[in-house]
Amino acid sequence: MPQFTPQDYSMMSRAIELAKGGIYTTAPNPNVGCVITLNGEVVGEGFHYRAGEPHAEVHAMRMAGDKTVGATAYVTLEPCSHYGRTPPCAEGLIKAKVAKVICAMEDPNPQVAGRGIKMLRDAGIEVEVGLLEQDAEALNPAFIKRMKTGMPFVQLKMAASLDGQTALDNGQSQWITSPQARQDVQAFRAQSNAILSTSKTVIDDNASLNVRWNDLPSSLKQSYQESSLRQPIRVILDRQNQLTPELKLFQTEGERILVSHSGDVTPIENDQQQIDLNQTFAALVKEHNINHLWVEAGATLASSLIKDNLVDELILYFAPKIMGSDSRGLFGALGLESMADVIDLDIKDVRQVGPDIRIVATLNRKEP
Amino acid sequence: MPQFTPQDYSMMSRAIELAKGGIYTTAPNPNVGCVITLNGEVVGEGFHYRAGEPHAEVHAMRMAGDKTVGATAYVTLEPCSHYGRTPPCAEGLIKAKVAKVICAMEDPNPQVAGRGIKMLRDAGIEVEVGLLEQDAEALNPAFIKRMKTGMPFVQLKMAASLDGQTALDNGQSQWITSPQARQDVQAFRAQSNAILSTSKTVIDDNASLNVRWNDLPSSLKQSYQESSLRQPIRVILDRQNQLTPELKLFQTEGERILVSHSGDVTPIENDQQQIDLNQTFAALVKEHNINHLWVEAGATLASSLIKDNLVDELILYFAPKIMGSDSRGLFGALGLESMADVIDLDIKDVRQVGPDIRIVATLNRKEP
Repeated sequence: MPQFTPQDYSMMSRAIELAKGGIYTTAPNPNVGCVITLNGEVVGEGFHYRAGEPHAEVHAMRMAGDKTVGATAYVTLEPCSHYGRTPPCAEGLIKAKVAKVICAMEDPNPQVAGRGIKMLRDAGIEVEVGLLEQDAEALNPAFIKRMKTGMPFVQLKMAASLDGQTALDNGQSQWITSPQARQDVQAFRAQSNAILSTSKTVIDDNASLNVRWNDLPSSLKQSYQESSLRQPIRVILDRQNQLTPELKLFQTEGERILVSHSGDVTPIENDQQQIDLNQTFAALVKEHNINHLWVEAGATLASSLIKDNLVDELILYFAPKIMGSDSRGLFGALGLESMADVIDLDIKDVRQVGPDIRIVATLNRKEP
Repeated sequence: MPQFTPQDYSMMSRAIELAKGGIYTTAPNPNVGCVITLNGEVVGEGFHYRAGEPHAEVHAMRMAGDKTVGATAYVTLEPCSHYGRTPPCAEGLIKAKVAKVICAMEDPNPQVAGRGIKMLRDAGIEVEVGLLEQDAEALNPAFIKRMKTGMPFVQLKMAASLDGQTALDNGQSQWITSPQARQDVQAFRAQSNAILSTSKTVIDDNASLNVRWNDLPSSLKQSYQESSLRQPIRVILDRQNQLTPELKLFQTEGERILVSHSGDVTPIENDQQQIDLNQTFAALVKEHNINHLWVEAGATLASSLIKDNLVDELILYFAPKIMGSDSRGLFGALGLESMADVIDLDIKDVRQVGPDIRIVATLNRKEP
């Protein structure tokens, strides 16, 4: 293990904080931050803001100017080694004559991992890897999951009363959660790469499933400009071609991907005549470069996702209400016959959002 | 409004912290703390530890000795004016020649409120009331509710999976929540005056419903001695005389009150042949001096308590599990037909308890 100094920790923390400046704009690209120091002083810093725009290292090198010579670069992710829409950052760092590069983590893509590092080392630059690695990984769960598995990172959002009910038996469910919770949902939508729902939800609620500037939390509006708002792609499961053009979904800005027999992705069906979610998600990654799905739908899709082991995080809003068990529950029937079969989660975060409670829980996948 | 000094705030805060030393032992008496200062220095302090033992003021006066002359006494509750198991504290403070008494709040019993204050003032002592009143009230929600309304303060404890289910359809429910949550429940039991349950719960779980020293949180065990542990009274609703003597309930130490036709309290029935809970609770207060009920029971009693507007606080443990809506829900059918009829709560506290989540919510009573 390399020995990192307190200065190293401090500079990489700064790079990680910088990286967060892109969480509402970079998708599907990863969030990356970079700090360049010379003789212990920061001479350049930057983060990746948007796909197609310069990488974090480029911003930092531009700021540093000729002070990159002999400098140390702290980067939250291994510098890229390939020509994409921008030239490879490893090449840039070599040309800039930095003396040392410290990366928080390797590129998670097993086919490229280490190539950027090798390029730097071959050019005589000292490279160390693994400083604050876990914090750096937490910046990009979706990018990392796609690179490692070919599957998207899936967040399932649900809202219920404290006793786990989502609607009265007669279907009434308006405004279970508060305006503050709905703002919070808007912030999650804005961070996601795509919003997944079903034709049923789109039709029942005439949902536009977009990000609305006015509904975003004010903290977010202070750090971004309305013009930089990115609309996540709306992916709608519509196996039976039920969507019609007058719906708000089609009247609002933002890309749409329809999973239907006449749509953009043809649904692969299982033997129960349902969409095979595993294969569909893999296709969304492969064909549409989607790595982060934010799911807002009803109990049927929610329980299918749970049963198919496709959920990474459950984001559950509880309104401080009791509705009674003759109402409609969060998940459909799961047919569990033993407590050993119950689906286990880990609580990652609990907090109050206005009058409501928000729980973020990760699913403990059992190996099949 | 009297003008309180920073010293006054500081001393009353100290008295309130002292009062908390009795939360596991004083029931059904209130928690009270007292600090006596002379020339700005603390000369005595104390709190009420157990019914029948000296009041907070007596402990503080004993510690102060002859330094009570000309002193200021800070008491979290108006000093008592009546002869009970101990002589009235107002009289004691007069004899001790204190110059000034500051009370956080009046005695909540409308029939006695202000009498202790009047005794002090008639003796020429300066008295001020209302310093940190809300904090002082929070020490004794049950005592205050009983004094003001003749009804007990009711805490309803429930435990469920994140989707609000308490047992699988086949009845399996073992260990939904963690050992840490069960320790937390033991601490709540220990603070209560009485534990309410039903013969069904007692028989199904062979529940002893007592406080077990070994199961208490270690933080609690550090501040109390096993010998000072007080067993709450166990109140069991047993309208149909189903309890049998071999049950653990009868094999464990602690008082029992059976609400049955052959028991200690005769159930008053409503026209659906159910126990009238309002009248039964009023009788428990009147006949057995109970002011704080901790309820552990199933969905049937829980929903009756909710419908009858008898719950002050809901203490809800969520285990990080999903069980599916074909399991058994937290509350029975409430028959709500409009979202306007949904039962509203306010979240008072949310925290993680081991791997579980604990929510404390107060009920917003609608006027009938």
